[in-house]
Amino acid sequence: MIDIRDRVRNSALHAKIVSAEEAAAIIKPGMNIGTSGFTPAGYPKAVPLALAERMKKEKFQVNLWTGASVGKELDGALAEANGIAKRLPYQTNEAIRKMINNGSIQYTDLHLSHVAQMARYGFLGGKVDVAIVEACAITEEGHIIPTTSLGNSASFVQDADIVIVEVNVTQPLELEGMHDVYIPKDPPNREPIPIMKADDRIGTPYIPCGVDKITYIVPCDLPDAVRPLAAIDDDARAMSGHLIEFLNNEIKHGRLPKNLLPLQSGVGSVANAVISGLVDSPFENLSVYTEVIQDGMFDLIDAGKLTFASGTSLTPSPEGLKRFYANIAEYRKKILLRPQEISNNPEVARRIGVIAMNTAIEFDIFGHVNSTHIMGTKMMNGIGGSGDFARNGYLTFFFTSSVAKGGAISSIVPMCSHIDHTEHDVDVFITERGVADVRGLSPKERARVIINNCAHPDYQPMLLDYLERAEKATGLAHTPHLLEEALSWHIRFMQTGTMKK
Amino acid sequence: MIDIRDRVRNSALHAKIVSAEEAAAIIKPGMNIGTSGFTPAGYPKAVPLALAERMKKEKFQVNLWTGASVGKELDGALAEANGIAKRLPYQTNEAIRKMINNGSIQYTDLHLSHVAQMARYGFLGGKVDVAIVEACAITEEGHIIPTTSLGNSASFVQDADIVIVEVNVTQPLELEGMHDVYIPKDPPNREPIPIMKADDRIGTPYIPCGVDKITYIVPCDLPDAVRPLAAIDDDARAMSGHLIEFLNNEIKHGRLPKNLLPLQSGVGSVANAVISGLVDSPFENLSVYTEVIQDGMFDLIDAGKLTFASGTSLTPSPEGLKRFYANIAEYRKKILLRPQEISNNPEVARRIGVIAMNTAIEFDIFGHVNSTHIMGTKMMNGIGGSGDFARNGYLTFFFTSSVAKGGAISSIVPMCSHIDHTEHDVDVFITERGVADVRGLSPKERARVIINNCAHPDYQPMLLDYLERAEKATGLAHTPHLLEEALSWHIRFMQTGTMKK
Ligand SMILES: CC(C)(COP(=O)(O)OP(=O)(O)OC[C@H]1O[C@@H](n2cnc3c(N)ncnc32)[C@H](O)[C@@H]1OP(=O)(O)O)[C@@H](O)C(=O)NCCC(=O)NCCS
Ligand SMILES: CC(C)(COP(=O)(O)OP(=O)(O)OC[C@H]1O[C@@H](n2cnc3c(N)ncnc32)[C@H](O)[C@@H]1OP(=O)(O)O)[C@@H](O)C(=O)NCCC(=O)NCCS
Repeated sequence: MIDIRDRVRNSALHAKIVSAEEAAAIIKPGMNIGTSGFTPAGYPKAVPLALAERMKKEKFQVNLWTGASVGKELDGALAEANGIAKRLPYQTNEAIRKMINNGSIQYTDLHLSHVAQMARYGFLGGKVDVAIVEACAITEEGHIIPTTSLGNSASFVQDADIVIVEVNVTQPLELEGMHDVYIPKDPPNREPIPIMKADDRIGTPYIPCGVDKITYIVPCDLPDAVRPLAAIDDDARAMSGHLIEFLNNEIKHGRLPKNLLPLQSGVGSVANAVISGLVDSPFENLSVYTEVIQDGMFDLIDAGKLTFASGTSLTPSPEGLKRFYANIAEYRKKILLRPQEISNNPEVARRIGVIAMNTAIEFDIFGHVNSTHIMGTKMMNGIGGSGDFARNGYLTFFFTSSVAKGGAISSIVPMCSHIDHTEHDVDVFITERGVADVRGLSPKERARVIINNCAHPDYQPMLLDYLERAEKATGLAHTPHLLEEALSWHIRFMQTGTMKK
Repeated sequence: MIDIRDRVRNSALHAKIVSAEEAAAIIKPGMNIGTSGFTPAGYPKAVPLALAERMKKEKFQVNLWTGASVGKELDGALAEANGIAKRLPYQTNEAIRKMINNGSIQYTDLHLSHVAQMARYGFLGGKVDVAIVEACAITEEGHIIPTTSLGNSASFVQDADIVIVEVNVTQPLELEGMHDVYIPKDPPNREPIPIMKADDRIGTPYIPCGVDKITYIVPCDLPDAVRPLAAIDDDARAMSGHLIEFLNNEIKHGRLPKNLLPLQSGVGSVANAVISGLVDSPFENLSVYTEVIQDGMFDLIDAGKLTFASGTSLTPSPEGLKRFYANIAEYRKKILLRPQEISNNPEVARRIGVIAMNTAIEFDIFGHVNSTHIMGTKMMNGIGGSGDFARNGYLTFFFTSSVAKGGAISSIVPMCSHIDHTEHDVDVFITERGVADVRGLSPKERARVIINNCAHPDYQPMLLDYLERAEKATGLAHTPHLLEEALSWHIRFMQTGTMKK
């Protein structure tokens, strides 16, 4: 067995070190399993793999609660073993997605900032039964030093009767000190979260646990299954350019300070392109208050443009991870990981005034956003933290390419086939075509700006035609729609393979 | 002219007392006018009436920004004069509604907590040019004692170059001391809002202004145009009963404290019925953290059940107003009015854990809510504060009767014709039929609970049939919809006058 005794700093705890199989044996069918992990970072690996093996033989299921998406050793392995009854709050795994969309897994798609408190309140179908969290080390006092993400780990540990700690020897000990763990009390006793800047520390560098609360400790030597980032394409580059121009103009008009406000950016290639694009921007002394810290942040740090980045997960590409490890002594001064209940908290997002930048699947001419569903029915990933930030940001952006599937789909439609963010929540839309600044506009005003500035020329006349006929048919109603046609673009795509007529 | 000199406590300010006509003359076409007022309470009356007269002669328009809806002397008079180009953030006026739905007025429907900050940020099309606020009195220092609502008054006064104060002699001086005015600084300098209980005072009992900043003072003797509350009908009584039973059960299961958590309740008859219903409930030591304080709150205070009510507006019925005035010395100890930026703030709502209770126009089987649009196109009132509370509450309820228009409309539909609150934001639905507790459920699970517990029997088989066929057609996709039929109920109603087949 891998020797983790130096990382388990209280020798009395060495007696609790067991194999992954032994630990997995404590899990009972139907239990709520709360794990660490947020993106393929910091999730447990050994115990889930052992649990999956047991499930294949014994045929049973559990409910899996995580921070967000996790790696293949957890989501992938349990899916393959058909071991998940209910999954929450977010996922990006191919196999899970399929099972969510064929009725094999019930999926509860939640705002990421809500998960820990809903679990504590007992709103998700009982409490967390077992917490499984990945650790760099366990302190003398039995507290847990997390690894590359914090997610909901701290709250799950606090709630669970059974705590399994996976000590991962591939995670560098230099991660110690990069966490700030704070679990709010519940109403009526909750206090203000005292964060006013991205780098304010308000908690402990470990997950409070204690020697007695730990049930098992399991060694693990599997690294985070990080993935390469998609190359930055022309569309993403164009969107990044539009954003920078827009922000510059806001500064010029006194609507933003010169060093902007704390940046939040979603995951994926557009988000990464936007952050990377800032390297060549005139902005300095930037700060980041976000969920996921990707490669682009290292570029900004290296360029001397980023003073501090607060997130809940550190998810570079494989090259980014190497780069991070090679220079960890420097990067760790400028990066902090917090529980997602804090990184995504509306209170903090609104107070510090994040610039919220997320990617949409589609948006409609009146400014509603679909972040989750393909053609209104199939779950893609989930809402994630986009709603936490979009609703509460100082300025809220949504990005998307104007078309998808080689032009067969317009990402700007008459009516979204599913709505995750409403017209009340978005300030600015950006596609590779341009920027639609809809602040303060009525729906009919918004529609023209969105069609003219963001839609693809192939679809602009069709959208305008829809709008004009809807205005006529409804006598210029507040939100002119032709209900018979509102979803016809999606229907046409499903029937003919294109939204074009 | 009405003598207001005793209410204008700095005699140097007496020179600024002018007629409504004189004050209204300072307003130029195209200006952004920010007024006090939230529901028909505390809005200016004399200057708007004079402005409307001027508009009829001179034919010009302004943009009207208020707290929320206001009385007929403001919305009604300006609408009649065709004097409003853009209206925000909320309204309930018949004439304005018509003009919003025929293209004569551009309407920006905003979360009420967002308005003041968006105005300060310069996001609504320039800054407030003129603030017109109703006052009980003006202090020695030139600060403004508000009347029956606070809304956005304080922030508008802070921002405006021109400040017109309407001193209303019908508003009792006992209102002094019932306000708590706090204007947050803007990012990056904003600090935590230090409210932890409904009765925490954090600001001043007046709107900070100062002698120099006041442009004109206008006397007024028109009372708030308060309206009778609709009688509590059987549906509302049934919903109130379901709510109390549900809350009792939450307490029994340890998911709520015995005295509940601070209650937020929307406006209108259902909301009032729910609050009144609590008089006969077992709950004690209740507190309220809401927008609008209606008659039901007096019932609770009289019954000794309410320890404190915080709101932004005091809007009793005509009888309620009499009752309030008759016992103002007692009621004023238990009621506080705050700016809507504070009463509706997500930070506070989430921290203190409000129980959010609002009324929907319709909701769908998957848990999305329409609060604003009739048949997807016509604006009813606006989202108001419902989103501020629904997203951030400890527990979020939406109420509606299961049918409307005598049964011709099912308020539970396959897909909402407009969405203001998404599936991610609601915990519990209540109709006169029963309670759908959808916490932690997947969309397909939610659909069955909603159909079985909330829908009207006339529509239950149709909804279930839709769900089952959608499940079949999509192979049990995450959110099974038949896009061809999703809005067909609304279309059928518009074509045939009923959603029934
Ligand atoms: C919306 C989201 C799926 C976009 O991700 P992305 O990687 O930038 O998007 P892509 O352009 O690669 O598109 C993903 C898929 O959706 C498809 N797609 C894109 N736009 C589409 C549209 N309008 N209609 C249908 N499908 C569409 C793409 O073709 C692609 O399909 P494929 O996997 O079959 O090739 C992703 O950002 C997300 O999950 N967001 C929600 C959560 C979130 O915002 N998290 C951050 C919060 S902090
Ligand atoms: C949703 C809202 C309009 C309901 O108000 P209400 O007074 O309880 O509702 P009513 O039952 O009287 O219905 C109002 C109208 O909508 C119609 N209506 C109700 N349900 C309907 C439906 N499903 N489809 C179409 N029309 C419907 C009613 O028939 C009525 O029409 P009428 O005026 O022509 O008679 C109101 O609560 C609102 O504006 N909410 C949004 C803002 C908010 O929530 N504020 C509180 C936040 S703190």
